[in-house]
Amino acid sequence: MGRITARKRVTRITLGESSADTTVSRREDLLAVEEPLEIRVGGTSLSITMRTPGHDFDLAAGFLISEGIVAHAGEIAAIRYCAGVTETGENTFNVLDVTLANGVAAPDPSLERNFYMTSSCGLCGKASIDAVRTASHHPVAHDPLVIDAKLLASFPDRLRAGQDVFDKTGGLHAAALFDGRTGEMLVLREDVGRHNAVDKVIGWAHGEGMLPLSGMVLQVSGRASFELVQKASMAGIPMLAAVSAPSSLAIDLAQESGMTVVGFMRGRTMVVYAGEQRVAVPHLVEAAR
Amino acid sequence: MGRITARKRVTRITLGESSADTTVSRREDLLAVEEPLEIRVGGTSLSITMRTPGHDFDLAAGFLISEGIVAHAGEIAAIRYCAGVTETGENTFNVLDVTLANGVAAPDPSLERNFYMTSSCGLCGKASIDAVRTASHHPVAHDPLVIDAKLLASFPDRLRAGQDVFDKTGGLHAAALFDGRTGEMLVLREDVGRHNAVDKVIGWAHGEGMLPLSGMVLQVSGRASFELVQKASMAGIPMLAAVSAPSSLAIDLAQESGMTVVGFMRGRTMVVYAGEQRVAVPHLVEAAR
Repeated sequence: MGRITARKRVTRITLGESSADTTVSRREDLLAVEEPLEIRVGGTSLSITMRTPGHDFDLAAGFLISEGIVAHAGEIAAIRYCAGVTETGENTFNVLDVTLANGVAAPDPSLERNFYMTSSCGLCGKASIDAVRTASHHPVAHDPLVIDAKLLASFPDRLRAGQDVFDKTGGLHAAALFDGRTGEMLVLREDVGRHNAVDKVIGWAHGEGMLPLSGMVLQVSGRASFELVQKASMAGIPMLAAVSAPSSLAIDLAQESGMTVVGFMRGRTMVVYAGEQRVAVPHLVEAAR
Repeated sequence: MGRITARKRVTRITLGESSADTTVSRREDLLAVEEPLEIRVGGTSLSITMRTPGHDFDLAAGFLISEGIVAHAGEIAAIRYCAGVTETGENTFNVLDVTLANGVAAPDPSLERNFYMTSSCGLCGKASIDAVRTASHHPVAHDPLVIDAKLLASFPDRLRAGQDVFDKTGGLHAAALFDGRTGEMLVLREDVGRHNAVDKVIGWAHGEGMLPLSGMVLQVSGRASFELVQKASMAGIPMLAAVSAPSSLAIDLAQESGMTVVGFMRGRTMVVYAGEQRVAVPHLVEAAR
């Protein structure tokens, strides 16, 4: 499998027409790996991006071309992995250093101003995601939220129904905050960037004096990345629910911070990747335990 | 419509079973707006993100919470729009300044190292996207690529068929480079980040000595953002084809740089948003011109 996919133990819930038809099965599932890659040029850090490992040298070269630092063949003299070790001293292969050919100008330090900083997190440059988890002012590990799986299963359709701009353009991500007890949708925001939609929801709740968001579910339209788990964690949200798949690092962080992550929500089925104690399935028939 | 959606003139192509059934219609379409937002704290720039305008104050507050700068109600004293004007002097409402409450620590300047810089572009801080366009070493405006619409329509399925990791995890974006003349797929890359998948493709081509990528089509699995048009432009790729919708700024940049952008590729239909002269529809029946 290598580092492109990672195995995680998950819980798959299929809600039946009657409670007797409802099944819960536990199995291993494959997730896409997400890890940070730091790109340095001549030893100076230029960019940190969350990526799937593999073809890292191509990624670095392509990034330098996209940035206008390199434009032609032969302008990159060498690319190599450098320092970046785990607690046990293994190379993480998550830091690259690029040596430009003689005569190719190094990136202007002021270029930093030209990068988008779309995110967030504090992971990069820190030793582990432990450091991220402790950064939250609003720990979620002991949040008492427990939500009925049938109520949770209704959120994606209600999110979709509220996406006014998506209906017009087909081009937006959405995030919404649901009360885990009553199921009420408190706010929905759309944006070209999924992280922005989440920030808009959290910022709204802050303005309403609602932080930390104990007992709430953050429902998002797309996939669950590390970044979204991080944002939910910082706002004290105990559950992230995503229509599509999560990444490996999203689940690692959720497990470390005690958050629940649900994904692949398709009608009456869903997959619980972390914190399954918060998803209640009444009268369930457990299979393949 | 305001600034959440923007109208663009597009060309919709529906390929019939026979050439007599093929139709081309021109109409106005609504696109999701994408614009940069610069978030400053106490006058110091903290972040620039590409976002859909609207709820900008919530976005800024949520971002500060996600970053751990703000954690509780009352820690933000004020948020206001500040300088950021167009060539004609109008406020763009694309720059915000946040004033923290007394006693709340301003972001550490070294915090900058903790942001992901997932992208790229050079737009932000420059006066207009004109400045971006001129930054490319490989102009595409006069690229002679013309591709048969039927050949182009086959690319999404061939991209999808090559997504090994998506098949296993359901969690990855993909980008591939197709030869616009022969239709050959030269390289395909998958990543949790769509921009990374594109950088990996461009970096591969650079390693093969193929830059600039004249006559090529960059096919992506998801939506077409400004960032992807920017990356294609820097590598000299004359056509970006996306399975889903583009953003307004993606089309603005494509039009300024003379690139072709095709989106909403669904089986036998597609929408051309810019540079339609590069999409050939033989024996077409034009409707609603």
